[in-house]
Amino acid sequence: MTAYDRRRRVTIADVAGHAQVSTTAVSKVLRNAYGVSPAMREKVQAAIDELGYRPHAAARAMRGRTFTVGVLLPHIRNPFFADVLDGLMDQLAGTGYQAIIVQGGGADPEAERRAVEALTDRQVDGMLMIAPLASKADLEETARTTALVVLGRHDRSAVYDSVFDDDETGAELVVGHLLALGHRRIAHISQKDGSRVRPAELLHTIRARTYRRVMEEHGLADEVAVATTSYTEEGGYLGARELLARPSRPTALFAGADLAAFGALAAIHEAGLAVPGDISLAGYDNTRTAALAHISLTSVDQDGATMGGTAGRLLLERIGGRTSAVRFSVTPTLVPRRSTGPSPDGETRGGAAAG
Amino acid sequence: MTAYDRRRRVTIADVAGHAQVSTTAVSKVLRNAYGVSPAMREKVQAAIDELGYRPHAAARAMRGRTFTVGVLLPHIRNPFFADVLDGLMDQLAGTGYQAIIVQGGGADPEAERRAVEALTDRQVDGMLMIAPLASKADLEETARTTALVVLGRHDRSAVYDSVFDDDETGAELVVGHLLALGHRRIAHISQKDGSRVRPAELLHTIRARTYRRVMEEHGLADEVAVATTSYTEEGGYLGARELLARPSRPTALFAGADLAAFGALAAIHEAGLAVPGDISLAGYDNTRTAALAHISLTSVDQDGATMGGTAGRLLLERIGGRTSAVRFSVTPTLVPRRSTGPSPDGETRGGAAAG
Repeated sequence: MTAYDRRRRVTIADVAGHAQVSTTAVSKVLRNAYGVSPAMREKVQAAIDELGYRPHAAARAMRGRTFTVGVLLPHIRNPFFADVLDGLMDQLAGTGYQAIIVQGGGADPEAERRAVEALTDRQVDGMLMIAPLASKADLEETARTTALVVLGRHDRSAVYDSVFDDDETGAELVVGHLLALGHRRIAHISQKDGSRVRPAELLHTIRARTYRRVMEEHGLADEVAVATTSYTEEGGYLGARELLARPSRPTALFAGADLAAFGALAAIHEAGLAVPGDISLAGYDNTRTAALAHISLTSVDQDGATMGGTAGRLLLERIGGRTSAVRFSVTPTLVPRRSTGPSPDGETRGGAAAG
Repeated sequence: MTAYDRRRRVTIADVAGHAQVSTTAVSKVLRNAYGVSPAMREKVQAAIDELGYRPHAAARAMRGRTFTVGVLLPHIRNPFFADVLDGLMDQLAGTGYQAIIVQGGGADPEAERRAVEALTDRQVDGMLMIAPLASKADLEETARTTALVVLGRHDRSAVYDSVFDDDETGAELVVGHLLALGHRRIAHISQKDGSRVRPAELLHTIRARTYRRVMEEHGLADEVAVATTSYTEEGGYLGARELLARPSRPTALFAGADLAAFGALAAIHEAGLAVPGDISLAGYDNTRTAALAHISLTSVDQDGATMGGTAGRLLLERIGGRTSAVRFSVTPTLVPRRSTGPSPDGETRGGAAAG
């Protein structure tokens, strides 16, 4: 074995032995952790200098900081995530931190698990998971070894932070707006998932449940119609086709995401219907495409840049040593545009906004 | 030192010592490299089994494969990249490879360099760089240690593979289409960059140069008008505002990317102009948004999924040991939609498509 000693890099164990402290203490000094005394720092630094210990990236990865945060997102196609990432990147700028991104792949929790493992293997210092499907228990397992911020879920956890939009208010705003325009046959496009999460914690189940509740509160339980596809263009297209084919065709569609609304728009056009003359359409996320004059989609703004920036700040705090859990909620606003108008049934009920 | 021996993980050096072979030989067996004899494989495997050597991720990262490919892209907001990634992911499915993504950040080569370093530090087995700004020399430097495929540039290199769209043909198709509709005052929105690359190798310079060449070939050198902003919504908006403010207002805009065309659409709408009545608009990339009935943007399809899938295949081949360089070119097609129509100047020149 000694034949390899000379060739071997100086390790953290060598440093610990030389300084006569534990490897944990060395590791703490290396990653600039909380609760290291100046004396300890000095002793370890002296050993590092004497032995010429130079942690290279992979070694640092094993022992200390990698100055990398991992981001899990379902799919890069959703432009809302670009807003979130812009906010995150702004927050990381100048900190020396780089973000690496993996795609969870949508509705398959197994694919998501593999993507998260890829981040764990790359030994990121912290993770931002956007709308993950994993169970709270799995998330807490991850949080035990890696600083974790979860965006887009309403979990209460003692070991990770949550950043989310008040999806209940957002859905109330949309359904209330459509009710005020006189619509009664309001249908909803939601998202299927393969998650093992308590449904109450996922944003799409909250939006769907709130839609249903507000409809019921207005005596419209019989008009509830939900197509459960996905928050993608394809999902919106298929969901709208399904809903438009119903004998009692809806006069308004509330798609749980702008991306699904764009797909719905294609289905509505294919069916020869006019927006908003024949059917009103609303989305969620207030993406830039929604704001285009030719689309002009009514949507809900949840300020992705602020959510991403806040998530970045919380993540850096956690990496820095904060262990208390934080929940940060953004209150969304409705952005009414030309895609929603009075119901063609003509029974406008001015004061009927959801309460 | 011996005090740490028991605690130490079994290393690749231990395996080599036990099998009485070089560490390089062990490393070759571990990463399943070319040119390992069955006898060598057996000897090393026996030592691995006897010593209970279990390379964990970071150790594998130091010595062999990480089963990770890194993807550099300018920004996730461009939906064309989502098509490319879909193709890549399909290709990686079932291979055990995971993709991690970093954002280069647009026009800043320094930010791109840091993002690439983050991938290098994570010791990916291979990299796919989409439209990188780095010089060919820098790319070749990376390619010396990591399997590299470059997408969206026309470089000829002996050490990395190139996958690109025939941007010259694509730009010819657009300008030819607009000429055939009778337009003469055709303007172009291009992209500024901070790259140190030979301009000829970047897709946006090829598109701009081809636009200029075709205009000149049709005696329209005096009508050449280029706004050099960026291939983003903001860039398209600013570029269109600049071009529409010219004393001799263009009757057609060719935006080098759909995303820029969407921004241009907003500027056109703001100026109170109709598409295509007052002004025709064409993009490049044939994104899904371009296909929406209410946008119906004429665009160029370069089949991002095929490009991404091919890039993935080439990357796996390189990781597997191929060292010869491959260039793969996609021939684009024009997808004419309702955003382009006859010039309001009314001088349709039927056969004037670019040759």
